[in-house]
Amino acid sequence: MRILLVGAGGVGDAIAKIAARRDFFETMVVSDYDVSRAERTIAAVTAKHGDQGARFVAAKIDASDPESVAAVAREHAATHVMNAVEPKFVPTIFAGALAAGADYLDMAMSLSEPHPDDPYALTGVKLGDDQFRQAGDWESAGRLALVGMGVEPGLSDVFARYAADELFSSIDELGVRDGANLVVQDENGEEIFAPSFSIWTTIEECLNPPVIWEKDRGWFTTPPFSEPEVFDFPEGIGPVECVNVEHEEVLLMPRWVDAKRVTFKYGLGDEFIGVLKTLHKLHLDATEPIRVRSANGPVEVAPRDVVAAALPDPASIGPRMTGKTCAGVWVTGTGKDGTPREVYLYHVSDNEWTMAEYDSQCVVWQTALNPVIALELLATGVWSGTGVLGPEAFPATPFLELMAKPEADGGYGQAWGLDDR
Amino acid sequence: MRILLVGAGGVGDAIAKIAARRDFFETMVVSDYDVSRAERTIAAVTAKHGDQGARFVAAKIDASDPESVAAVAREHAATHVMNAVEPKFVPTIFAGALAAGADYLDMAMSLSEPHPDDPYALTGVKLGDDQFRQAGDWESAGRLALVGMGVEPGLSDVFARYAADELFSSIDELGVRDGANLVVQDENGEEIFAPSFSIWTTIEECLNPPVIWEKDRGWFTTPPFSEPEVFDFPEGIGPVECVNVEHEEVLLMPRWVDAKRVTFKYGLGDEFIGVLKTLHKLHLDATEPIRVRSANGPVEVAPRDVVAAALPDPASIGPRMTGKTCAGVWVTGTGKDGTPREVYLYHVSDNEWTMAEYDSQCVVWQTALNPVIALELLATGVWSGTGVLGPEAFPATPFLELMAKPEADGGYGQAWGLDDR
Repeated sequence: MRILLVGAGGVGDAIAKIAARRDFFETMVVSDYDVSRAERTIAAVTAKHGDQGARFVAAKIDASDPESVAAVAREHAATHVMNAVEPKFVPTIFAGALAAGADYLDMAMSLSEPHPDDPYALTGVKLGDDQFRQAGDWESAGRLALVGMGVEPGLSDVFARYAADELFSSIDELGVRDGANLVVQDENGEEIFAPSFSIWTTIEECLNPPVIWEKDRGWFTTPPFSEPEVFDFPEGIGPVECVNVEHEEVLLMPRWVDAKRVTFKYGLGDEFIGVLKTLHKLHLDATEPIRVRSANGPVEVAPRDVVAAALPDPASIGPRMTGKTCAGVWVTGTGKDGTPREVYLYHVSDNEWTMAEYDSQCVVWQTALNPVIALELLATGVWSGTGVLGPEAFPATPFLELMAKPEADGGYGQAWGLDDR
Repeated sequence: MRILLVGAGGVGDAIAKIAARRDFFETMVVSDYDVSRAERTIAAVTAKHGDQGARFVAAKIDASDPESVAAVAREHAATHVMNAVEPKFVPTIFAGALAAGADYLDMAMSLSEPHPDDPYALTGVKLGDDQFRQAGDWESAGRLALVGMGVEPGLSDVFARYAADELFSSIDELGVRDGANLVVQDENGEEIFAPSFSIWTTIEECLNPPVIWEKDRGWFTTPPFSEPEVFDFPEGIGPVECVNVEHEEVLLMPRWVDAKRVTFKYGLGDEFIGVLKTLHKLHLDATEPIRVRSANGPVEVAPRDVVAAALPDPASIGPRMTGKTCAGVWVTGTGKDGTPREVYLYHVSDNEWTMAEYDSQCVVWQTALNPVIALELLATGVWSGTGVLGPEAFPATPFLELMAKPEADGGYGQAWGLDDR
């Protein structure tokens, strides 16, 4: 397996660091628009792993240009293109990988567009629609696009498949629930506002109309931040208020897993919801460039890019952050024994541990872990397929076993939890 | 009198429209970095006033460059430079006017810098310090800089002088209080967030540490939004929650008017305070340029400039706005008869009226009214002086009389109120 990693931001950097401990691949090309970021990642890997670092090479890439993606993939004879940049670049990387004859993985899917007339009730263009529309091209090329293979979507979809196969005879709701108790401080120990994940993506998913799936109704939408609910997260995180958010799981799970209802709720908290509402009110969430004065005359910038640039880089805040983040799926329905069952399947990532082990903050690291496991399952042939497939299209047990097995025994040493409620 | 008006934004445009009805000046040069804005103002004046419009000429100017200001002033033999751009350009226009041998007026003073160690208790560089430091240069040149001559500062300072001269034997507090009941709607009649005054300036004054003056303590500062108080505004506006805000009056009034305490409180309201706090939390109030990606490669923009560019231009929202704005001074102390007295001196501007009469929204128009009256008093010699002086350095009664006198009798037809409480 020869992997072209597109993007050496926080998640791309962590993918390289996690992969460096594994021997399932031959080469990983770490590419970025800013090649110095790729070189920094490789220097860190080489410093820690010596010879293993020789499998990594840096390259410059323009993720917005399918030709550039295809050219870099061909130059390095990539068998797999691993997309680790923002979802706005999904279409171009997706096209570049297919053009180069490589398989493809991402952690977020092609973006949605709200319904023009009734955005808070009806879906318009849905997350991933653009990719699923091209499924035939991937099938006929005999190539695989494994989409939504981060932690959420990704591990959450694996959990859904596991619940359907191993725990339930019928499922009422697959409710993805994500919460954390992370706190970031400045140099003086004062708590600061510093999102632990790309604000660009967070704005996108939180301000778009949340999507819900019901068996007798199909996909539909609601107003942002709808149906607030307090969910009790495990391992000391405790109760967090969660609200509906547009997320890939709701588009992926119903395609392969039988359930009556699929939802995604994110533990944003009051402060973050307030920030997002204010950004929207002031049109600072906009992605269309506006004209702004500058010392060098008027320039055109997207307000959302300015918001992202003004905040600390999420990849940089790890040393000043404390707490844990939890990703999982709350499943309700009828158990294998025919009685009602309710479980929360989850994985917790502790920032103190990820910083010490990987020099990577926990949200970013948790996202990066899962595509590396998936790549290993594809490399060893445990997972295989063609077309455009979500994580729940593959058997879940081998994934969760490899994930949980101690590192000393060839696993990833990452325990996951099953909380019977 | 030959006036060089610097800036044809909302306030500059309204100054030209108000001045067009008066005959105290020979020429007004309407200048802007974007000369098309100046031309638009002159076209509106000419359409309404015919021949009177011939006194207006357009010019291009760079307000950030003293040489450019001086060159345009000299070219048109300006006797007075009227600064109608954002306060960040005060130093360069101030210098350009003096270099060209012209008198100078502005509506906001040179900016402050917080105290480096204890910003919420001690003043650092105060509003106007930079201008008052140069007072000797203006005195020795025999030239006048009349600073802070809008509505607040401006009319509020005139009211303070009036109270001291005509109403009180001793003053406990001069409390400037500003409130409104303005609402802006979009095309569909939905209420939207659209500040009625430059957001750049509003951020500056609201996020800087508010300054207070006390006779036995001098100037000192507090944290932003301190000492909330509900003030009852007249003419149907009603009670509005007001908080301390950094404002020029507190720096101007104690220099010429005897009082025990001087404060400024602004009726921001919860929503606006929340927006300002969020902008600060996200570093979007910053005026230092940051590097942001764009379609044409990385650019350097100040986040605050992006916030301003993303919001509707305050000058453009008049047609979609309803309500009134009130500016005034709440004076407490001992009346001329030796008994306790409490009055609120104020002026109310109604958007419906200013739009119908001047095609100018009420906050912008109310700001523009006062420097025109001051220019007229200087042109007729009723007001005169040299050096750097605030509005309260001049007799208040002629100003208030000219303002209130009906237009048919040669006044401005703007009643002001005295509310005995």
